[in-house]
Amino acid sequence: MASSSISPLPLTRPSVQAAYEAIKSRIHRTPIFTSSSLSASLPGRNTLYFKAENLQKGGAFKFRGASYSLECLKEDELARGVCTHSSGNHAGALALAAQERGVKCYVVMPNNSSQPKIAAVRSYGAEITFCEPNARARADTLAAVQSRTGATFVPPYDAANTILGQGTALLELLERAPEPLAAVITPVGGGGLLAGTALAADGTGVRVFGAEPAGADDCAQGLSEGRRREDVQANTIADGLRTPVGVLNFPIIQDKVERVIVVSDEEITEAMRLMWERLKLVVEPSGATAFAAVRSAAFQELGITGPVGIIISGGNLDLSKPLPWC
Amino acid sequence: MASSSISPLPLTRPSVQAAYEAIKSRIHRTPIFTSSSLSASLPGRNTLYFKAENLQKGGAFKFRGASYSLECLKEDELARGVCTHSSGNHAGALALAAQERGVKCYVVMPNNSSQPKIAAVRSYGAEITFCEPNARARADTLAAVQSRTGATFVPPYDAANTILGQGTALLELLERAPEPLAAVITPVGGGGLLAGTALAADGTGVRVFGAEPAGADDCAQGLSEGRRREDVQANTIADGLRTPVGVLNFPIIQDKVERVIVVSDEEITEAMRLMWERLKLVVEPSGATAFAAVRSAAFQELGITGPVGIIISGGNLDLSKPLPWC
Repeated sequence: MASSSISPLPLTRPSVQAAYEAIKSRIHRTPIFTSSSLSASLPGRNTLYFKAENLQKGGAFKFRGASYSLECLKEDELARGVCTHSSGNHAGALALAAQERGVKCYVVMPNNSSQPKIAAVRSYGAEITFCEPNARARADTLAAVQSRTGATFVPPYDAANTILGQGTALLELLERAPEPLAAVITPVGGGGLLAGTALAADGTGVRVFGAEPAGADDCAQGLSEGRRREDVQANTIADGLRTPVGVLNFPIIQDKVERVIVVSDEEITEAMRLMWERLKLVVEPSGATAFAAVRSAAFQELGITGPVGIIISGGNLDLSKPLPWC
Repeated sequence: MASSSISPLPLTRPSVQAAYEAIKSRIHRTPIFTSSSLSASLPGRNTLYFKAENLQKGGAFKFRGASYSLECLKEDELARGVCTHSSGNHAGALALAAQERGVKCYVVMPNNSSQPKIAAVRSYGAEITFCEPNARARADTLAAVQSRTGATFVPPYDAANTILGQGTALLELLERAPEPLAAVITPVGGGGLLAGTALAADGTGVRVFGAEPAGADDCAQGLSEGRRREDVQANTIADGLRTPVGVLNFPIIQDKVERVIVVSDEEITEAMRLMWERLKLVVEPSGATAFAAVRSAAFQELGITGPVGIIISGGNLDLSKPLPWC
């Protein structure tokens, strides 16, 4: 299944910049938050710059990759529509980006998806096809949707255009932060955001780190073993990070990311509570994972003394459920 | 008890502008949020501009009035320190504003105040004196603190400088909103924010509204009876709005505010949930009251078709408790 018919740009920093030029009128330039109390709470007292992608359209950074993927389609492809499989933020992002351009969107979702997620995708005008919650049923159902509609598949993370689009968040952060960053850290699930960020940082001198939950640490394990793991146990509160890292994404991370720091669900929950309390932002568990890593001994022992950029990946969670620290 | 020794400026729009010049380097210029889904959900489809004072220092607009009150003190008064009584956002705001200027701060708090509020005031370096939770004990304890320390009392709302400081939020909103506002609405408890906003709007053509919880609607009742009510039943989830409207505040509201709209706790809770979900902002019940009023039939029947400014007053709440809609 081709993700798009126009040849993607090479996976380089200039390509991320080109992607940004292509989508910047369609996305929110999300604000950057600081908190003197959160910075002061760290042993290294690093000034923290939080890039609030939970305030991106659709509530997550995924809107960037979805927007750029649409930008790379030809007119006749746009006319037939786009499709994807996702139970999370990518489905909402693609549906919203397609709706804003008047493009049909078809989403395959597992039949055990939560009601708020189904409602969000539906509210953006996408047509949902439910499937059994397993990889085989998902692939078969997506293939059936494609053959029926002729829609182009837009993958959630394992595609060049998706990666280039996600990298644009760091470009904005570097442009708007009041001082040069020593490092930047993002969560890693499929690796679209982390690989894109690493490309965007290339040659800038900014050190790049990833943050991964212990219950889904296939990327950190793959890095230590020297090859990508295809499976992931996916036992974590950070539901956006339960996917294995992608085929295209892994070698970029291997090449350009200094380290992926693994954190426990308890650390994620504590970081999330602090962000709600101090930043007054609704952040989902995945979106708190990078800050959890910065607070960890593993990160603090690196001895980075300069400012650190933290990408808050998203803010979509089911608010009808008790908060995880309650 | 004099609130400050330098004669306050007259209660006019130019005085709010002068207050802004005095404090603008000390406060956050808080961002303005929009949401196409929230705007589209209203019968009048008004474009809504949310001024996010929950992102102000200390988590509430109160930092503005506290900062301006400090700005109006003489050197010898600053040397002796400031004091106040409050169980809420004003105590934290004054403590933080004083700490940032190296001024001593004494806070009288009822001995049944919540732990997070006590912790916040303490974290800003203020000295807390606890008292029995009644008005008499509070006044006596504050008088004792003043006579011991010589500190100047900075009132939470019923003082000219406090009112002028709170009005500065609207100046920023008018300056930064991408189009002229038809109306602005703020919550009303003691009336510092609403009176200050009304002064700041004077002569601009922007219609000014207040929003008050049904369980503490002394201001709305006073307006309909033509005189200020000195008592308030204070039975509402919006804990920041449980105070009776102030002596100085009431006539300004009477003169310049078109209407105070009363909303139920259910309406406040629903507005709060929508703001968390769609704006991804942590907003306290008081901070959701103005949006609840905009969603009400009473407001929608006014037939205002233009853009509406909504001041989100604060985002401080005890996150260890269940969310009110759960």
